Amino acid sequence: MTLRQKTAAILETQFVQNFVVGVIIFNAVILGLETSQSVMARVGGLIEMLDKICLAIFVVELLAKMFAQGLQFFRRGWNIFDFVIVGVSLVPGSDGMSVLRALRILRVLRVVSVVPSLRRVVEGFVTALPGMGSVFLLMGIVFYIGAVMATKLFGESFPEWFGTLGKSGYSLFQIMTLESWSMGIVRPVMEIYPQAWIFFVPFIMVTTFAVVNLLVGLIVNSMQDAHAAEENAATDAYRDEVMRKLNAIEARLDGAGKNR
Amino acid sequence: MTLRQKTAAILETQFVQNFVVGVIIFNAVILGLETSQSVMARVGGLIEMLDKICLAIFVVELLAKMFAQGLQFFRRGWNIFDFVIVGVSLVPGSDGMSVLRALRILRVLRVVSVVPSLRRVVEGFVTALPGMGSVFLLMGIVFYIGAVMATKLFGESFPEWFGTLGKSGYSLFQIMTLESWSMGIVRPVMEIYPQAWIFFVPFIMVTTFAVVNLLVGLIVNSMQDAHAAEENAATDAYRDEVMRKLNAIEARLDGAGKNR
Amino acid sequence: MTLRQKTAAILETQFVQNFVVGVIIFNAVILGLETSQSVMARVGGLIEMLDKICLAIFVVELLAKMFAQGLQFFRRGWNIFDFVIVGVSLVPGSDGMSVLRALRILRVLRVVSVVPSLRRVVEGFVTALPGMGSVFLLMGIVFYIGAVMATKLFGESFPEWFGTLGKSGYSLFQIMTLESWSMGIVRPVMEIYPQAWIFFVPFIMVTTFAVVNLLVGLIVNSMQDAHAAEENAATDAYRDEVMRKLNAIEARLDGAGKNR
Amino acid sequence: MTLRQKTAAILETQFVQNFVVGVIIFNAVILGLETSQSVMARVGGLIEMLDKICLAIFVVELLAKMFAQGLQFFRRGWNIFDFVIVGVSLVPGSDGMSVLRALRILRVLRVVSVVPSLRRVVEGFVTALPGMGSVFLLMGIVFYIGAVMATKLFGESFPEWFGTLGKSGYSLFQIMTLESWSMGIVRPVMEIYPQAWIFFVPFIMVTTFAVVNLLVGLIVNSMQDAHAAEENAATDAYRDEVMRKLNAIEARLDGAGKNR
Repeated sequence: MTLRQKTAAILETQFVQNFVVGVIIFNAVILGLETSQSVMARVGGLIEMLDKICLAIFVVELLAKMFAQGLQFFRRGWNIFDFVIVGVSLVPGSDGMSVLRALRILRVLRVVSVVPSLRRVVEGFVTALPGMGSVFLLMGIVFYIGAVMATKLFGESFPEWFGTLGKSGYSLFQIMTLESWSMGIVRPVMEIYPQAWIFFVPFIMVTTFAVVNLLVGLIVNSMQDAHAAEENAATDAYRDEVMRKLNAIEARLDGAGKNR
Repeated sequence: MTLRQKTAAILETQFVQNFVVGVIIFNAVILGLETSQSVMARVGGLIEMLDKICLAIFVVELLAKMFAQGLQFFRRGWNIFDFVIVGVSLVPGSDGMSVLRALRILRVLRVVSVVPSLRRVVEGFVTALPGMGSVFLLMGIVFYIGAVMATKLFGESFPEWFGTLGKSGYSLFQIMTLESWSMGIVRPVMEIYPQAWIFFVPFIMVTTFAVVNLLVGLIVNSMQDAHAAEENAATDAYRDEVMRKLNAIEARLDGAGKNR
Repeated sequence: MTLRQKTAAILETQFVQNFVVGVIIFNAVILGLETSQSVMARVGGLIEMLDKICLAIFVVELLAKMFAQGLQFFRRGWNIFDFVIVGVSLVPGSDGMSVLRALRILRVLRVVSVVPSLRRVVEGFVTALPGMGSVFLLMGIVFYIGAVMATKLFGESFPEWFGTLGKSGYSLFQIMTLESWSMGIVRPVMEIYPQAWIFFVPFIMVTTFAVVNLLVGLIVNSMQDAHAAEENAATDAYRDEVMRKLNAIEARLDGAGKNR
Repeated sequence: MTLRQKTAAILETQFVQNFVVGVIIFNAVILGLETSQSVMARVGGLIEMLDKICLAIFVVELLAKMFAQGLQFFRRGWNIFDFVIVGVSLVPGSDGMSVLRALRILRVLRVVSVVPSLRRVVEGFVTALPGMGSVFLLMGIVFYIGAVMATKLFGESFPEWFGTLGKSGYSLFQIMTLESWSMGIVRPVMEIYPQAWIFFVPFIMVTTFAVVNLLVGLIVNSMQDAHAAEENAATDAYRDEVMRKLNAIEARLDGAGKNR
């Protein structure tokens, strides 16, 4: 057994797995405490040190995994996921880069790649996406067309909401979620362009219908998968058995015919 | 027949069951009247006395049940439910404890533990929960990460919404329900941090997608249960019958072959 | 053929059916025009006369139906529906009773009782309701408990929203639909009672979960009905055929055994 | 091979198809850039010229298709779709007609008629509609009745929201989407007509229930189609095979009977 295999075996042990989950949870608590100014004022130094220790443990675990798996490491999506998340934390953030500091909490997502039941849920989400590809593409097209039209039609009078393609896209996303679409956006717009509802009402209908269709597609897909996976095993076994028996009976009758 | 068995038998009679339901409904009306100041001004004393009588009946019923069932009493979830609800009403609430007084209306929930059809609905809800455990856990992680990030990024400028982990969690729950998320929260935030939508729009997409997935999971589960329970009984009977007949035919042919 | 049977036959003819639908649509247009002040100012008298003629036709049709069907008339739900709707229009409304005048538009609903495809949709809605009875009852209980608690806890400080049981019920319905629940209601309440979210957030979760469950129940029910109605016909025919053939083969083998 | 057939063959080649998709995407980018004032100030002339070139390519492609297919051209829905979209762009828009200019972005929708996977999604949407016809008709009736009643009851006091049938219809659509229905509309109305909730709450319940029913119908339909299309192929093959075998066995036994 080489050192590589030994490292792999150690990483797979239940103890190491549980230890990593423990460190992740501990780190999550540490990063949560960091948001409290009173805690940071009193024990800020300790908190930051503990955070660095947690990060060091993650780096060591990741390096060990890379050593154990070699180039195979980058073939698994979850490894790349871990690699990026830990990597982000290592980028030296100057004081101005508060965003990078905030991203460190993403490390908690590592719990998803470590706990199998959570990993399955996320994999279920991700595998459902490609089947929805065409609907997403269509919604992208509808949004792009809507954003261009809204910018051209209402951009001049309402630069705050429809001044640029980006602003229009954001406003249309808000309208699709039905948040304040009428009292907040469309009624004010209709005071200047009384026919504006001709644009917005169909937009709402088309996009919500598309979202509903996505939902229906998801349900039907999950359903068939579940159906196919569970029930059909029993059905196939039964059908094979019936066929086997019918063939046997036919063969017997054939044999009886030939014997005579 | 011991006194214990007699008590159990009496508690099970239709008359006692109906009487308890009647007392619960009567108590619900009494507690409803208590919210009216004009009613309380005139017959407040009577109302409070009737409420105490109802409570006394519940206590007697509960004690009788505990006597009849002995230690088995605490093995059933619904008994513990009743015990806690009635127990809360017995805690002496000082005048400042208006919350404890308000909790007395929870006694009406006892109707759920007494009426079988309502009990089944709640049991259906509760049994659906464990299957959703992983998704709930995942949403908890997403909320925790979101709350930490929002507090670090926007807490200083918007202490009202994102000042502490708790406030951020509440605001993110509001955003997940899509209530005033844009006009009320994100647009004001974007006036100071123009890139804030990079955080909020994906957050909305991920959490609503997870909620939809919960829904889909629930539907698929219910469906399979219903499918398995009802239709498969007929299918299994048919399949058994076909197998029996095929076996009989084979046996007959075997016999015919041997006889010859 | 008695006069009764003749009347029934005439009412059933396609011509009379189409004529009634035509009158309903014409009446709908008339009642729509009545909302326009400029139209009423010019041809108000004509509009009111035409409305009265339509009503007269409905009354004659209804009386003819009652004559033709006798006491059976009141056994069919749709007849009672028509009777109430036409009856409401006949109540003499004084000038103060603008509500009664507004209710006349409900006559347009008669198109539902006349056109079979619409009738089926409504019957589908109505037959779906009883299966949901327990969930509705449970939601009623949750609303009642919620209204009593909200009135006791927040009624004094927010009489506008939670002053009486009725006001609390309305506010909770608004909160269940997620309309302005946080920015409009709960955040203001939390400024006085900082722990108010402990009441409202679970209320939202429980009620929306119950609504989702209603939805799931509806889908599963419709599904099984559709499944049972359509596919099983083919399945049952196939199974009967298989059984018939297997029985025939067995009988043949039995016969062969006896002949020998 | 006539010129017509040659044209048809050229139009069907992968190269021409990809070229058309490329031109559509390029045109989408051009039309997007047109919304930016800074871009238009610098290279406005170039942008407009490129847009005209794209339009010319579409016109040539459409004419070629019409020549190739002859009168058959107008039999296909997607051709008419393309024809209308390109036709709209050719209408000479005076400066006042900014709406016509904005409609040019609809050309991007041509990508739907060209890319098969998007075409299938839209066809799926459209074929789902007729089955929902009755529910849509019913919702139309409910909206018409609601609009007439709201105009008569609240039109005088709230001309902004319920002044005309059209305004009432728009407000009711907003209420159906649950946007600001209570804080924005019904609470102000209830300050003058305290009983207004008797109209609005049932309206919300009926319309959202109808929308849910539409959703359920869609799901059940898709489900059955998917079920019928995929699984039944295997089931039918199996059933045919069983039947064939049973018939063969019967025939063999018949033959055996006769031979003897």
